[in-house]
Amino acid sequence: MSTVENQLEELQSTIESEVPNDITITEVRYEGPELVIYTRDPKRFASDGDLVRQLASQLRKRITVRPDPTALSSPDDAEAEVTEVIPDEAGVTDLDFHIDTGEVVIEAQKPGMVIGRHGTTLREITQETGWTPEVVRTPPIESSTVKNVRNFLKQERNERRDILERIGRQIHREEMSDDQWVRITTLGCCREVGRAAFILSTPETRVLIDCGDKPGSEDEVPYLQVPEALGSGPSSLDAVILTHAHLDHSALVPLLFKYGYDGPIYTTEPSRDLMGLLTLDYLDVAAKEGRAPPYESEMVREAIKHTIPLEYGDVTDIAPDIKLTLHNAGHILGSAVAHFHIGDGLYNVAFSGDIHYDDTRLFNGAVNDFPRVETLVLESTYGGRDDYQTDQKDSERKLKHVLKNTLERDGKVVIPAFAVGRSQEIMLVLEEAMRKGELPEVPVHLDGMIWEATAIHTTYPEYLRDDLRERIFHDDSNPFLADQFNHIDGGEEERQEVADSGPCIILSTSGMMEGGPIMSWLEHVGSEEDSTLMFVGYQAEGTLGSRIQNGRREIPIGGRNGRGSSLTLNMDVKTVDGFSGHADRQGLENFVQTMNPRPEKVLCVHGDERSTQDLSSALYHDFNMRTFAPKNLETFRFL
Amino acid sequence: MSTVENQLEELQSTIESEVPNDITITEVRYEGPELVIYTRDPKRFASDGDLVRQLASQLRKRITVRPDPTALSSPDDAEAEVTEVIPDEAGVTDLDFHIDTGEVVIEAQKPGMVIGRHGTTLREITQETGWTPEVVRTPPIESSTVKNVRNFLKQERNERRDILERIGRQIHREEMSDDQWVRITTLGCCREVGRAAFILSTPETRVLIDCGDKPGSEDEVPYLQVPEALGSGPSSLDAVILTHAHLDHSALVPLLFKYGYDGPIYTTEPSRDLMGLLTLDYLDVAAKEGRAPPYESEMVREAIKHTIPLEYGDVTDIAPDIKLTLHNAGHILGSAVAHFHIGDGLYNVAFSGDIHYDDTRLFNGAVNDFPRVETLVLESTYGGRDDYQTDQKDSERKLKHVLKNTLERDGKVVIPAFAVGRSQEIMLVLEEAMRKGELPEVPVHLDGMIWEATAIHTTYPEYLRDDLRERIFHDDSNPFLADQFNHIDGGEEERQEVADSGPCIILSTSGMMEGGPIMSWLEHVGSEEDSTLMFVGYQAEGTLGSRIQNGRREIPIGGRNGRGSSLTLNMDVKTVDGFSGHADRQGLENFVQTMNPRPEKVLCVHGDERSTQDLSSALYHDFNMRTFAPKNLETFRFL
Repeated sequence: MSTVENQLEELQSTIESEVPNDITITEVRYEGPELVIYTRDPKRFASDGDLVRQLASQLRKRITVRPDPTALSSPDDAEAEVTEVIPDEAGVTDLDFHIDTGEVVIEAQKPGMVIGRHGTTLREITQETGWTPEVVRTPPIESSTVKNVRNFLKQERNERRDILERIGRQIHREEMSDDQWVRITTLGCCREVGRAAFILSTPETRVLIDCGDKPGSEDEVPYLQVPEALGSGPSSLDAVILTHAHLDHSALVPLLFKYGYDGPIYTTEPSRDLMGLLTLDYLDVAAKEGRAPPYESEMVREAIKHTIPLEYGDVTDIAPDIKLTLHNAGHILGSAVAHFHIGDGLYNVAFSGDIHYDDTRLFNGAVNDFPRVETLVLESTYGGRDDYQTDQKDSERKLKHVLKNTLERDGKVVIPAFAVGRSQEIMLVLEEAMRKGELPEVPVHLDGMIWEATAIHTTYPEYLRDDLRERIFHDDSNPFLADQFNHIDGGEEERQEVADSGPCIILSTSGMMEGGPIMSWLEHVGSEEDSTLMFVGYQAEGTLGSRIQNGRREIPIGGRNGRGSSLTLNMDVKTVDGFSGHADRQGLENFVQTMNPRPEKVLCVHGDERSTQDLSSALYHDFNMRTFAPKNLETFRFL
Repeated sequence: MSTVENQLEELQSTIESEVPNDITITEVRYEGPELVIYTRDPKRFASDGDLVRQLASQLRKRITVRPDPTALSSPDDAEAEVTEVIPDEAGVTDLDFHIDTGEVVIEAQKPGMVIGRHGTTLREITQETGWTPEVVRTPPIESSTVKNVRNFLKQERNERRDILERIGRQIHREEMSDDQWVRITTLGCCREVGRAAFILSTPETRVLIDCGDKPGSEDEVPYLQVPEALGSGPSSLDAVILTHAHLDHSALVPLLFKYGYDGPIYTTEPSRDLMGLLTLDYLDVAAKEGRAPPYESEMVREAIKHTIPLEYGDVTDIAPDIKLTLHNAGHILGSAVAHFHIGDGLYNVAFSGDIHYDDTRLFNGAVNDFPRVETLVLESTYGGRDDYQTDQKDSERKLKHVLKNTLERDGKVVIPAFAVGRSQEIMLVLEEAMRKGELPEVPVHLDGMIWEATAIHTTYPEYLRDDLRERIFHDDSNPFLADQFNHIDGGEEERQEVADSGPCIILSTSGMMEGGPIMSWLEHVGSEEDSTLMFVGYQAEGTLGSRIQNGRREIPIGGRNGRGSSLTLNMDVKTVDGFSGHADRQGLENFVQTMNPRPEKVLCVHGDERSTQDLSSALYHDFNMRTFAPKNLETFRFL
C-alpha cells in the first residue's frame, strides 16, 4: 500500500476520533492541496461552525467537507430549499448541482449575501439540503472570458477531479531526501525586462515561477531547454506558480503543457482568467502577424484546467517540503508576491513578481509583511538611480488639465492604453473627476480588450483596493458601471459615429500603438488639430508610440493590405507620466526598508543591467544586506 | 548525408589537392579528436617529413597517417625490416602488428631511440615497411598495472576503434546554437576537500571535470543526480576530463559508465594507469570493509577503454566549440591543469586541479602560462591565512636528521605514506642522501602499493621533473632502480625477516594508518624503543595516524577477525612537515600573481570553508580580481 494510502487511513481515523460519534465519515481523499472529507452527515457537520476549523488547525491541512451521495436530497428538492434560504437581494443567477461531489455552485450578483456573516448562510444551506455550496460572483459587466472559463471548467469537471487527485497524491508523497538545500535558478528576466522564469529547487521539489515572453523579441524565450529547467523532463517539475497575468510572466505557461507538463499552476482566480484572455490574444496577434504561434489554443485550456486558484493569504502545501502563500502585489488585478516556506522552518523565499509599493486607485500597495523571509527576489524595472516617477497626485492633476483643455475646445482625447491595469486606473480618475465636476461629463469610449479586462476586474472586487471594494460591495456605486463608459462593440461603423460626434475620451489598445484599434482611431481623429493624443504609459524604443513621442507626425496606415499609405498627425501630442504599475526606485527601496522581517539576501531581477546593478548596490549600501544582480542561467544556493 | 560525412568528403578533397599527385588517399575518418588519413602510399608520405605537419596546421586538426591495408608488407617481412631499422640499444621488447589499421606497436626500453631525432627513425620505419609505428616504453620496473592496461587495450582494439569513431563524429558535429554563454556548475569540493566534480557548459556542449569521492565520508558523493548533472541523462555529457588520479578526483569516474555514460575520458596516460590502480584498490578496500562497492571492476575497464590520453600541451578538439589542453600541475604523476578554449576566441577557463607551484624533486612546478584565460578555478587546500608550510630544504634536513639518529642507534624507521606521490618524493631524498653519504646505506623496504606506483612512475619519465627525466634518459642512473629499494612481495614472512634484521627504512601504506600493511609493521616493530614512526603527510582528524600524533600509544590490532587485542607503541613518534603535494598559501598566491595572463575571475574551491574564503578575499584584495568561494550546487555564468 502506498504511503499516501496509509496517510489517508490515519487521517480518517484521527478525524473519526475527533468528530462527534454520530457523524459518519465515508471517505477521506486529497484533491490538490485540499483534504476532502466525505460524510453521510453533512448537516451535522454544518451545524457545528467550528468543527472544520478545528480539524484544519489540528491536521494542518485545508479541509473541504462534502456529502456522501447517499446523504443528498435531489437537485430539484435542493434547488427549492437553496432558493428559500438565500435572500432575494443576493441576486442568484445560476444554480449548478454536481451529484458526484455533492457540490452546488451558486452564481450570484452579491456573493456576500449567499455566504452570510461568518458563513452562516452557507452553513444553513448545508444544514437544510446536505449539499456543499460554492459561491461565485455574477460578473456585473458581462465577461465572455469569465463565462468561457466557468463553462469550460464545468464541462471538464470529471477530468479535473482526476487531475486534482493525482496532484494531491504528489503533494503529499513521502519526503525522500536527507539532504537540505534551497536553490534558485534564473531562466530569464535577469539584466533584462521580459521572459520572467525562475526555478526554485530543493532536494525534494522543483517549482517554476512564471514563464513569460520578452516583448519586442520573438527569439528570446526563457531558457527552458537547459538541463536544470526541462532538460530532465517536464514531469520533473512539481508545480508552476504564476505571479500575475502579464505576458512577460505568463505567455509561455501554456507551452509547458505542449512540452508534456501536466502538473498544477498556482495563481489567483483573476490571474487565471486574465491569463486566458491575454494568451489567447497573444496567439491571435501571432497569427495575424503571420508568425507560427508557439502553441495552440488547446494548450491555454489545458493551463486553465490545471490551475489551482489560491486566495491571498492562503497557506498551501504544494509539495512535501514547500508551502506557498500568495500576497497582494499591487501591480495588476490578481498580481501576487509569492512566498515559499521551505521545510519545517528551514528557509523562506519571497518572489516579488511585479510590485507597486504605494496604494494606487485600483489596488492596495504590495504586501511586505511575512512570518519569515531570508531571501527576496525583487523586481527592478525602475531600480536605476534616477528612476523616480512623478507623484500620482501631480500626474492626475496634469492628466485632468490636458483633458479639460482639449474637451473645452471641443476636441477629443485619444489615449493608447494597455488593456489590463492602466486603463482601469485612468477610468477611475475620469469617473471621479466627472462625478466631482472637475471634468465635463463626456462619453468615455473603451476599445479593444479594455472593456473585457474591465469586466474581469468587476468580477473580482475582492482583489481591488479596500475603499474601492467597499464602494462596490456596499454602496452599489461601482465606478466601472458609470454611465459615461461605452463599450465600442460596433466596429468601424461605431468608431465613425464617435468620430463624427462631439468631444469625448477614447481609451484604446494597443498601449504602444503597435497595431490594434488605436490605429483606426488615428485614421478617424488623427487629422483634428483640436484633439489630443495622450500617452500615459511607457513607450518602448522602436514602437510607433515612441516615434510619435519623439516628434514623428507622418503615420503609416493600412499597411496590412499592402497599400502602404500614410496620414499626417495634426493632433496635439502629450505625455503624462506617473501611472506605472511598477514601484519606482523610491518605492522599491521603501518596500525593502519597511519589509518585515528584513531579508538577508536580495536578488535584483526584472530590470535592465543598469537598473538591477544600481538597485543591488544601493540596497547593499543602505541596508547592509547581501545583494546580487544575477545573470540568466545562474544558480544560487542558499543554506 | 550527415554533415560529418560532408565534412570528411571536403577534407579528403583538400588533402588530395595538397599532397603530391602520386599519393593516393583512400579514406579519411575521425577517430576521437584525430583525423586519420588512409593512403596507398604511406612510404611517400613518410618521405616528406613536413607534409603531415603542414596538413595539420592548415586543417587545424591532429592528423595520423595510416597505410591502406593493400599497401602493407606482411607482418613477418615487416618485423625483419623494423628490427633492421631500429638500433639494438633501443631494447625492443615487443612488436605487435595490427593489420586492420596498419599500425605496429613497438615496446622498447628506450623509446627515444625508436623515434630518432625529430622522428627520423619512425619515418624510416614507415618508408621501409609501410607500417605506422606507435612507440611505448617497456616499464623499467615491471608494472602489473601497465601490463594489464596495455593487454586489455590490445584485446579491445576493435571495440575501441568503434568507440573512437563514434566520439570523433560527436566531436566534429555541426554547431547547433546561436546563443553564447559559458557556465560552471559546482557538483562537489566546494567549501570542502573531496568529491571534486564540476560541469563546464555552453549552449552546445557539457563536460564533466573530475568525479571523486570524499575521503572519510561514504555518503557524500558528487551531486550527480541533480538535473544539471546527469538528470538529463548521461548521454547529455560530451566528455569527462580527469585532472589527476587521486581518488577524491577519480573514484567515481567508472560509476559514470554504470550509469550509462559511454563518451570519452580525457586525461594523461599515467593518470589513466593510476586511475586503474587506485579505483581497483578502492573497490577492494570497500569489499574488505564489508561495504557494497558503488560499481564493479568491469566499469574500471570501461573507463580505461574510453580514455583518450593526451600529452601536456596537446591542443585537442573535444567538442565543436571546445578545445582542451592539459598542462603539468606538479601535484602527482600525470596531474594536469585543464585549460578550455571555448568558441573561436570567445572565452577561456582553466581548472587548476590540485597543484604544486614550486618544483619538487619529482615534478616541475605547475604551469601558469596560457595563451588566454579569463576564469581560473583554483584549488585552495592550503588557502587559509596561516597555511604556510616549511620550506622543502628544511623539511629534508629534518627528515635526514631523524633518520640518521634512528639508524645510528640501530633502530628502524617506519614511514606511513600514500602510494602515489609522497612515497616517490621520499625515495628520491633517501637515494640522494645515501649516494652522497649523508645517510648510511640501509635497505629501504617498500610495502603496499608503493612499489607498483613507483613502477608506473618509471614507465612515464616524460612526466617527471626535467633533471630527473634527463638522469633517467641519458645517464642510466634511474634513482628508483637504486639497489637499496626492496619490494616487500613475500608477505608476513618477509616482514618478519625484515623485523628480525638490522636498521632499515620502511615505507608502507596506508598513509593515514587506516588499515593496509602499515598495521603489520606496527605489530612487528611497534614495541621497539629504538625505532621511529615518522609521519610525512597530512593525517586527517579521526584517523589512527592523527590519534598517534596526538599522543595515543595503545593501538588496536587484529580487529578484523573480531578478537580485538591491542599493542603498546614504544617507538619514537616524529612528524616532518613540508612534503605536501599541494601548493601552500604562498604557492597559491604566487601561482596567481605570476599567472600569464592574469585571470579576471577566480573561483576558490577544494578547501574547507575558511581556506576558500580566506584565499578568495586575499586574491580580491591583492590582485583586484573578482573572486568567489562557491558552494556546491551553484552555477556561475560567464559572458
